[in-house]
Amino acid sequence: MVSTPTSRSEIRRLPERGAYDRATIDAILDAGIVCHVGFVADGTPVVIPTLYARRDDQVLFHGSAASRMLRGLASGLELCLTVTHVDAIVLARSAFHHSLNYRSVVLFGVATEIVDLDERAAALDYITESLVPGRVGYVRPMTDKEVRGTKVLVLPIAEASAKIRSGPPKDEPEDEDPEVWAGIIPVSYGVGVPEPDAVTSASTPVPRHVADWSLG
Amino acid sequence: MVSTPTSRSEIRRLPERGAYDRATIDAILDAGIVCHVGFVADGTPVVIPTLYARRDDQVLFHGSAASRMLRGLASGLELCLTVTHVDAIVLARSAFHHSLNYRSVVLFGVATEIVDLDERAAALDYITESLVPGRVGYVRPMTDKEVRGTKVLVLPIAEASAKIRSGPPKDEPEDEDPEVWAGIIPVSYGVGVPEPDAVTSASTPVPRHVADWSLG
Repeated sequence: MVSTPTSRSEIRRLPERGAYDRATIDAILDAGIVCHVGFVADGTPVVIPTLYARRDDQVLFHGSAASRMLRGLASGLELCLTVTHVDAIVLARSAFHHSLNYRSVVLFGVATEIVDLDERAAALDYITESLVPGRVGYVRPMTDKEVRGTKVLVLPIAEASAKIRSGPPKDEPEDEDPEVWAGIIPVSYGVGVPEPDAVTSASTPVPRHVADWSLG
Repeated sequence: MVSTPTSRSEIRRLPERGAYDRATIDAILDAGIVCHVGFVADGTPVVIPTLYARRDDQVLFHGSAASRMLRGLASGLELCLTVTHVDAIVLARSAFHHSLNYRSVVLFGVATEIVDLDERAAALDYITESLVPGRVGYVRPMTDKEVRGTKVLVLPIAEASAKIRSGPPKDEPEDEDPEVWAGIIPVSYGVGVPEPDAVTSASTPVPRHVADWSLG
């Protein structure tokens, strides 16, 4: 499936880096943990990082029912939700052509709130499972009070674009001196050793879903 | 130095996670590569990732003079610039108390363009050196044409706040079962092995500024 670019989702700068197909967009969304949500509050733009999860054709995010951001967005404010991964520092032979390799997705639209409590609880479980598969069955479930105190918003993946830069630097032909080192330095998120809290007994086994956890 | 919170920079949700001192804010900014810049275009919010560098009391970012975003921001649009680092997945004993450890900074304000070409070239060198210290002296300098084709914007670090979550999960006392594994899984950006491009000769040494490169 390919989104048709709109005036705001069309990539105009370096359009060769743009993509509108759902496989590309979904892969970038699925590789991330935190998105940046932009909206307008009191006339000025606000950009807030928040945890998210993709579920089919939707991005889910959540927070306290007391959150000004979530209350505002649930009332139908336009938003822009952006996910970015930095993959490498790109070192060219000219200062000008230095760059980054990255993958990003920008979504536009209006989010709606999940009002039904059972659906909301299911969406919250989905977000937790998306972050740590296998976790929900291991922990104490949400109580009704906790579900009631949480807003879950749903943004359709409809007006969406991806932008990707990959590969080596692109130098001017006259700069291509083999004696000058140019290339990329890859960067990526890595996973450390899980650290139990002070309550966890030394005899409590590290569950598989913790020991085997990986990003994306 | 401490910023005085304004109505938009004050942390209202979980205010105990908020900080307004410049040492905290600067450390978070200095640890990052990409920020998310939010602004309003044609009435809707737009959030775009971009490379940045802190220089004293300012954040610098740049792009093509043809960029709609940079042209709009240079004309005095309000913006919000956000930097986020995810440090750990926080696994609690209840689904509800799952969280992330993170550090984020949110800046509000209006950016100004560096019009003077010498100042602009110096700022571009600063951005490159901030990304890869030692690189500017190794590569072909910017030409006048390249400097003229690039906009550099400066956002003062004035209306700023940081928000930080760190440490173990915070469970409800009645959930604190030592037989349930709770704790954190640390995540962090790691650096891979530099990869020379196809032009670089096999006999060209990897410069120290590449071999020793680290984040932040």
